[in-house]
Amino acid sequence: MSEPVVLGLDFGGTKIALAVCDAGGARLGSVTIPTRPAEGARAVFTRTVAAARELLAGRLPAAVGAATFGIPGDGGVDLAPAVPGWEHLALARELGAAFEGAAVRVVTDVKAAAGIEAGSGALAGCDPGLYLNLGTGLAVAIVAGGVVLNGRNGASGEIGYNLRALADVGVPPNGRVPLEDTVSGRALAEGAAALRPAAPHLGAALDSGDPAVGRLLGAFVGELAFHLVNLAIAVDPARIAVGGGMVRSWRHLHDGLRRALDAAVPYPPELVPARYPFDGPLRGALALALAAV
Amino acid sequence: MSEPVVLGLDFGGTKIALAVCDAGGARLGSVTIPTRPAEGARAVFTRTVAAARELLAGRLPAAVGAATFGIPGDGGVDLAPAVPGWEHLALARELGAAFEGAAVRVVTDVKAAAGIEAGSGALAGCDPGLYLNLGTGLAVAIVAGGVVLNGRNGASGEIGYNLRALADVGVPPNGRVPLEDTVSGRALAEGAAALRPAAPHLGAALDSGDPAVGRLLGAFVGELAFHLVNLAIAVDPARIAVGGGMVRSWRHLHDGLRRALDAAVPYPPELVPARYPFDGPLRGALALALAAV
Repeated sequence: MSEPVVLGLDFGGTKIALAVCDAGGARLGSVTIPTRPAEGARAVFTRTVAAARELLAGRLPAAVGAATFGIPGDGGVDLAPAVPGWEHLALARELGAAFEGAAVRVVTDVKAAAGIEAGSGALAGCDPGLYLNLGTGLAVAIVAGGVVLNGRNGASGEIGYNLRALADVGVPPNGRVPLEDTVSGRALAEGAAALRPAAPHLGAALDSGDPAVGRLLGAFVGELAFHLVNLAIAVDPARIAVGGGMVRSWRHLHDGLRRALDAAVPYPPELVPARYPFDGPLRGALALALAAV
Repeated sequence: MSEPVVLGLDFGGTKIALAVCDAGGARLGSVTIPTRPAEGARAVFTRTVAAARELLAGRLPAAVGAATFGIPGDGGVDLAPAVPGWEHLALARELGAAFEGAAVRVVTDVKAAAGIEAGSGALAGCDPGLYLNLGTGLAVAIVAGGVVLNGRNGASGEIGYNLRALADVGVPPNGRVPLEDTVSGRALAEGAAALRPAAPHLGAALDSGDPAVGRLLGAFVGELAFHLVNLAIAVDPARIAVGGGMVRSWRHLHDGLRRALDAAVPYPPELVPARYPFDGPLRGALALALAAV
């Protein structure tokens, strides 16, 4: 009989990351596939399972840990507009059916990443700590006593829904622009692409020196800082660790956020890139799977 | 030898509440004195000790629990502009000197009140829960796993320092108006008194039906709601409990806050008055003293 393995999945709005580990946590293989949200939840899920089976090469996982955007529940994933139909996908049950006999754990991606940072990353020993995800979307996680704050409904940290201005008070979501639509990797990349259509990616546009891109970035950092400052005042964290794809543009983000924190937070926290900025959710999913074995 | 007693103190910006309990927590006596901030920290402290001695009537407290505005530290109380000099008053040491042999515990007032609500009040069993203090000042406390989030520096929840607008980002405190200067019992009372100088107190002004007071109240509730909504999104609390003197005007506050939470928070929390809206900090201070015996 072969050694037991575990499967880790990270469902993101742009890509899906998969990895297989042995029971000691050593990575045996990994692969990334595009999400292609337009295909809908069922197709995305089926393609992911096929990629996982290929990666497993005949081995049966003892456990599956999955990180996903949104708030996973029994009947589907809430607050998950990134992939049409994801809200009706019973992710844990479907994974259990796809990998019979495996223990299944499902968690929100940003909370998975924050858990890994709290355990062995940039937030280890920080009480409290704040994890800021700047990926395709926008969210945070509060770490207190070494544990990620889950929230009553698993929805703590979903600041992409934040109100942006006083005029938004009392206005339902379809009548206002939520924070994530202006402050997220996707929003900034779309804005930069409109200004610099020839730039191959966001980083290239930010590096271009184009003053219009500079103004766009300034507005982005300013609005992000407004919300980060108020959160830091409420939590009084020892440190803020930043993860997600936008950490590739860290040098464009750091100074503005640092200045804003220093100017306004009574006890300004440290501000650092996460230890695992790009694969935190996958690592978190694997850790959950390993803990379930 | 007489039964052991404990002393509880709540230093507020307007008044100071004192109480003596027996070891079982039964209240033996209590008194309230005005703070008179203009007299300065030393005079306020000395007057409080004199009032406590009178209340104790010769008994020596086994423990003293004190709640205070600001962040109590070894050498003074930080973020405590309410009384000049409070920032250099080593409250725990001074209380230890004034009541020799007594165990001394000092805590931020809003955290003391939140602790009591989490233990036996409106936040019991709420994980997480949010305590909102609408008193002379403005602050919150986050309760997670039954425990009040302290913060790295004891300063979590001090949202009176919040940024109010994007234009405030990067501006030092002396160059901007912090939230507490517009959203607090003091701020609303001052505004209402300017409009209705004959009203004996804030409640009377709010009850007057004066449209100008109504507009003032509307702006107050709107800006409070903006910050409360964004906090509720970040924390995902089961319930928000509101304490402080403004709970006397609960009917003027509830509907606007309720509507704002329902419109914007993915999983809207309950919103209730605290169980001990007016003496939560004193009860929290007494509980700390009792636990120290």
